[in-house]
Amino acid sequence: MTAPAPSGDGLPGDVPATPAALRRLVADGRWTGPTAGLLDGYQQANLVIVPRDLAFDFLLYCTRNPAPCPVLAVTEPGDPVVRLGTTVADLRTDLPRYRVWHDGELAAEPPDITAHWRPDAVGFLLGCSHTFEGPLRAAGVPVRYAPESAAPPVYVTDVATRPAGRLSGPLVVSMRAIPARLVARAVEITARYPAGHGAPVHIGDPAALGIADLARPDFGPSPVVEDGDVPVFWACGVTPQLALPATRAPYAITHYPGHMFVFDHTVDAGPAPG
Amino acid sequence: MTAPAPSGDGLPGDVPATPAALRRLVADGRWTGPTAGLLDGYQQANLVIVPRDLAFDFLLYCTRNPAPCPVLAVTEPGDPVVRLGTTVADLRTDLPRYRVWHDGELAAEPPDITAHWRPDAVGFLLGCSHTFEGPLRAAGVPVRYAPESAAPPVYVTDVATRPAGRLSGPLVVSMRAIPARLVARAVEITARYPAGHGAPVHIGDPAALGIADLARPDFGPSPVVEDGDVPVFWACGVTPQLALPATRAPYAITHYPGHMFVFDHTVDAGPAPG
Repeated sequence: MTAPAPSGDGLPGDVPATPAALRRLVADGRWTGPTAGLLDGYQQANLVIVPRDLAFDFLLYCTRNPAPCPVLAVTEPGDPVVRLGTTVADLRTDLPRYRVWHDGELAAEPPDITAHWRPDAVGFLLGCSHTFEGPLRAAGVPVRYAPESAAPPVYVTDVATRPAGRLSGPLVVSMRAIPARLVARAVEITARYPAGHGAPVHIGDPAALGIADLARPDFGPSPVVEDGDVPVFWACGVTPQLALPATRAPYAITHYPGHMFVFDHTVDAGPAPG
Repeated sequence: MTAPAPSGDGLPGDVPATPAALRRLVADGRWTGPTAGLLDGYQQANLVIVPRDLAFDFLLYCTRNPAPCPVLAVTEPGDPVVRLGTTVADLRTDLPRYRVWHDGELAAEPPDITAHWRPDAVGFLLGCSHTFEGPLRAAGVPVRYAPESAAPPVYVTDVATRPAGRLSGPLVVSMRAIPARLVARAVEITARYPAGHGAPVHIGDPAALGIADLARPDFGPSPVVEDGDVPVFWACGVTPQLALPATRAPYAITHYPGHMFVFDHTVDAGPAPG
């Protein structure tokens, strides 16, 4: 609890030392900022909550698209508590900020979804690429972000995901520019983390993914590319969020970008999906 | 089409040369025997069909227990046709024999389920361990089966699987006795095939799994164990079949043991789950 306060909005003076301490601060309303860049080495996760009626379609969509949608945990219908390994947490309160969708339209961005929880809600926690950035840095592979940003640029491709029931949409990717001599190393390392989107889905040539201008991402900051870098693309957890609106589900809830769920376990010691 | 006829019941004179040719013979009622030992190198699969109402629980059970239940393909509710890679097949006719369950009780063992198909049926094709036996043999690891048998001994353990909704039950394992010096090699090779149950779940000491007498399996032939062998246990596709009856689902359909679905693709070139 002695590390310096990170930059960001609504942060307390001290950075919590453990995921459980972070989740407690969040539940108490004392931490409302992003989790990106915090608690390096712990498993962070994207959140998607859908009605029970859509849960089979959504789980099948994840099964058919494991690179963008690696399933870490699924809650029992109506039960807001996720239990996986030592993690026991309340999905209504333990993420710093949420997005609430009604009939496919953004309706609210609250710091707590207790009032939005439904008796048929099913929560999905999906792996995110924060997982492999620590191991990349530890292996000497630079992870280049724009100043003041803790996230990579993100692009909507013209590659279709595999549909499932009412869900379909494009593959969304994140990009990190890697020095040519380290690209193979980056593949080796990230391939070890299927729960963090795994190996890249594409290396080089943005046009082959339908990305017209690498300098203009659809989400996130501008890319940082140095001489001799190769653009390397990983499947991105934004993918399922783009597949949801077309279902016109009466409600859905997701995490607010960068404001993730953090598990007790590290990315190298995760239990099987729960 | 020139290989000798294998042993077994109801087999035609010629062994088909491709999975598509086998499926055509099966659909025409000209092949009613087992697929075990046929078409080495092609992806074979266990079949489970459940009502749409149970499909989310079943898919979640597979997600939480990926070693015994690796999902290869899932059909759209009511559609009997599976499409994956180049494979397009009718689940009602393209397996040699089935088991039909009503309210958790075995009701029939027909060679065709056209009359048993329901408008809300969802089919799951799950990987099976035939996948990795070819690669084991190719690497010089003996796969020892009882004479006249093309299957390993199978045991019900006292290890619980992770429940999901109405589904729960014990982990079921297959056993192959491997010479001690080749056990690590067997792990390395099978770990490459997560769609074939992957690496062993247990090596040595049957008692630790609750197996009192290795010589008396719960299913299949007696084990063949030579001096210096170590018993090696892999998760088994019988696991989900033991989890189904307790759901008392109005109906379920599975493959008859050894009478599997065979995909067009080889185990080394499988597409992502579909």
